[in-house]
Amino acid sequence: MREDALLYNMGNRRVVVFRKEHFNAAHRLNNPRWSLAENKKIFGLCNNEHYHGHNYELIVQVTGEIDPDTGYLIDMKILSDLIKDEVLNKFDHKNLNLDVAAFENLNPTAENIAIVIYDLLRNKLKASLELKIRLYETERNFVEYPA
Amino acid sequence: MREDALLYNMGNRRVVVFRKEHFNAAHRLNNPRWSLAENKKIFGLCNNEHYHGHNYELIVQVTGEIDPDTGYLIDMKILSDLIKDEVLNKFDHKNLNLDVAAFENLNPTAENIAIVIYDLLRNKLKASLELKIRLYETERNFVEYPA
Amino acid sequence: MREDALLYNMGNRRVVVFRKEHFNAAHRLNNPRWSLAENKKIFGLCNNEHYHGHNYELIVQVTGEIDPDTGYLIDMKILSDLIKDEVLNKFDHKNLNLDVAAFENLNPTAENIAIVIYDLLRNKLKASLELKIRLYETERNFVEYPA
Amino acid sequence: MREDALLYNMGNRRVVVFRKEHFNAAHRLNNPRWSLAENKKIFGLCNNEHYHGHNYELIVQVTGEIDPDTGYLIDMKILSDLIKDEVLNKFDHKNLNLDVAAFENLNPTAENIAIVIYDLLRNKLKASLELKIRLYETERNFVEYPA
Amino acid sequence: MREDALLYNMGNRRVVVFRKEHFNAAHRLNNPRWSLAENKKIFGLCNNEHYHGHNYELIVQVTGEIDPDTGYLIDMKILSDLIKDEVLNKFDHKNLNLDVAAFENLNPTAENIAIVIYDLLRNKLKASLELKIRLYETERNFVEYPA
Amino acid sequence: MREDALLYNMGNRRVVVFRKEHFNAAHRLNNPRWSLAENKKIFGLCNNEHYHGHNYELIVQVTGEIDPDTGYLIDMKILSDLIKDEVLNKFDHKNLNLDVAAFENLNPTAENIAIVIYDLLRNKLKASLELKIRLYETERNFVEYPA
Repeated sequence: MREDALLYNMGNRRVVVFRKEHFNAAHRLNNPRWSLAENKKIFGLCNNEHYHGHNYELIVQVTGEIDPDTGYLIDMKILSDLIKDEVLNKFDHKNLNLDVAAFENLNPTAENIAIVIYDLLRNKLKASLELKIRLYETERNFVEYPA
Repeated sequence: MREDALLYNMGNRRVVVFRKEHFNAAHRLNNPRWSLAENKKIFGLCNNEHYHGHNYELIVQVTGEIDPDTGYLIDMKILSDLIKDEVLNKFDHKNLNLDVAAFENLNPTAENIAIVIYDLLRNKLKASLELKIRLYETERNFVEYPA
Repeated sequence: MREDALLYNMGNRRVVVFRKEHFNAAHRLNNPRWSLAENKKIFGLCNNEHYHGHNYELIVQVTGEIDPDTGYLIDMKILSDLIKDEVLNKFDHKNLNLDVAAFENLNPTAENIAIVIYDLLRNKLKASLELKIRLYETERNFVEYPA
Repeated sequence: MREDALLYNMGNRRVVVFRKEHFNAAHRLNNPRWSLAENKKIFGLCNNEHYHGHNYELIVQVTGEIDPDTGYLIDMKILSDLIKDEVLNKFDHKNLNLDVAAFENLNPTAENIAIVIYDLLRNKLKASLELKIRLYETERNFVEYPA
Repeated sequence: MREDALLYNMGNRRVVVFRKEHFNAAHRLNNPRWSLAENKKIFGLCNNEHYHGHNYELIVQVTGEIDPDTGYLIDMKILSDLIKDEVLNKFDHKNLNLDVAAFENLNPTAENIAIVIYDLLRNKLKASLELKIRLYETERNFVEYPA
Repeated sequence: MREDALLYNMGNRRVVVFRKEHFNAAHRLNNPRWSLAENKKIFGLCNNEHYHGHNYELIVQVTGEIDPDTGYLIDMKILSDLIKDEVLNKFDHKNLNLDVAAFENLNPTAENIAIVIYDLLRNKLKASLELKIRLYETERNFVEYPA
């Protein structure tokens, strides 16, 4: 940018960037402290002991100030790689109940999955960046964390 | 969940859940206190006295704390049934102007439809849950209430 | 194109082009030779005497040989204008049963609407071009003509 | 329709109707006659012994002549109910390998699932109707049967 | 509306309306104060000196109080025309770096484009209306301003 | 598969598989044998000498017989890698007119791009497999080759 670019100072503008990724996983909703009958009543078909599955769509939302040298809030390639390392490599083509440590003792509802993803990414991002997770379990059921 | 599940306490986490539904309806935009000419000028084709119609896409957004026993904010089946009872059964395959009581004296713009849906659902939900309505009249025109 | 462009002769290649448009309309499914009870039984909610409505998505598909001078099968602007003149101006923001001549004696099912649109466009296109109509009444119900 | 409706004879027009449904299921790709190493090599992550899953989008396509009394090729409610009975009730929220008889000895690839769905629906439809199945395993991978 | 319409007072309800538009443009990400090697390292393929391009999807979000006479926050036709005049006519089918004054000295990242669009529209809207811009560069990369 | 799997012989079933990919590119429509005025008249904004751009969505469709050992027509990973090598690496984040050899003397309309992609992939696929290309220039303008 030439000198006069300074006339258009973007440096303290706060923006939000969104990166959409997806993973395919099996899961089963179950509370081991409940009877089978109670689990069937509360979770219905989602309690199927052989699991079922979803194409999860994940939108990672990051908020902060633009870097005036790049015009980026954060390089989308870096954000995408971070999501791959911290989330997709652990969740994609996996059984969430059996293959993902976080759900060993946690029911993999969309709400809980979103919170786990938030926690996985939160401490990898600079503290100055805000983070929000949106997770689509189906096109018609989705969640966001934090509120 | 086993005892050690308590280590991952989800109980006070606030999340948002979204449920997408749809209904097909006819409507006409008209202000009966105005002349026909004025209505045509303001509402254009939307003032057609024989009505026109839309596939409305409705997203109901509920915010609150996760129930640690289920991992749900609210059971999506219960939320979906509530929307069916309070909204879809009254609006789907209907003429909003002629068949829906709320629009007897209210112009069925997307903005007003969203507010009516909000009011229909608000007092059926626990006071601790926040509610927001997004309504797509077309893919390119949509509204949200409350702001 | 320079002389050597002739090496890549596109002139006799047959391609298909698709143009997507949309219109919003009210309609009612009804067979006037049947009793009200029979109409309710066959057409259900779609028989509502006050009409209901849809955002119809229309895809017009034209097949033929590329024009080697333009690299177009048909100029999409010309195709789009033709659809506007012959279809959208007659159907958009209209009541199909009351405002569109073709449905005076024809039940406006998606199948029949697609055929009417085909007939409206067919004799406006050169005979050397094949025509097919796809019409979405909703995201989940759609039709194509001819088979 | 009044007598003069006969002027617009739709009776021998062949049309195609499409009905979109979906189901969520777990599956694992595996050939039991191969070694684990060979299965890993061919099927990669899809061979995960704990299963993974998908939101399958299913489009059932039926071709035939319009019924001039209804203006329908086939009542979409009847088609939708048929798909529910024959496919969704067996596949939705299931583990295809463990819960669906057809895949006891058949690898549940998208191709094979589409063929099984075709076979389930084919003998429930009148012979005069043509049938085609499109199945989306993800937004980017989908199949059609028959070719 | 009849007198008793006053019973349903919409006048002080705050709503949000969204209008979706799109434009197709070429661009190149580049910081002229950096070396070519540094630009390649930071911007990768997006630094291609011959430009590349996108179908940008633009969602303009306006917040304020409903006008009780129309039931509109703002007439979508007026909002759409404003976006056409201020944004699409300048950006659509253009090279952002070469054809759009705002990017003469400003890197046309999605973040910066969103801010420029915000500034173009902000002073054309009444001060009582809040404005937010969402811009999709691809289906998977999008931004919002202000945060 | 066990011996009795032979009862469900899939071997001679012909199926179609589809793989969706995308690339972002700049282009300009122009016929160098015409005057600037004639080019402006025919190609309008698409003739902008500084180029404009698109997010092209590409669907590669392959037809043939299922391999009974895998249940695949073709491994989607292999098909995706082939598209990457032959098409995406040459087209993505490029200026089609300046960076892609095939368009040195060929106008990069959607029709011509689809044919070029077909030719690039055709001789890399076994002769027993049929190939078809669908290319979306925008959501509303798309083409298919061969017809």
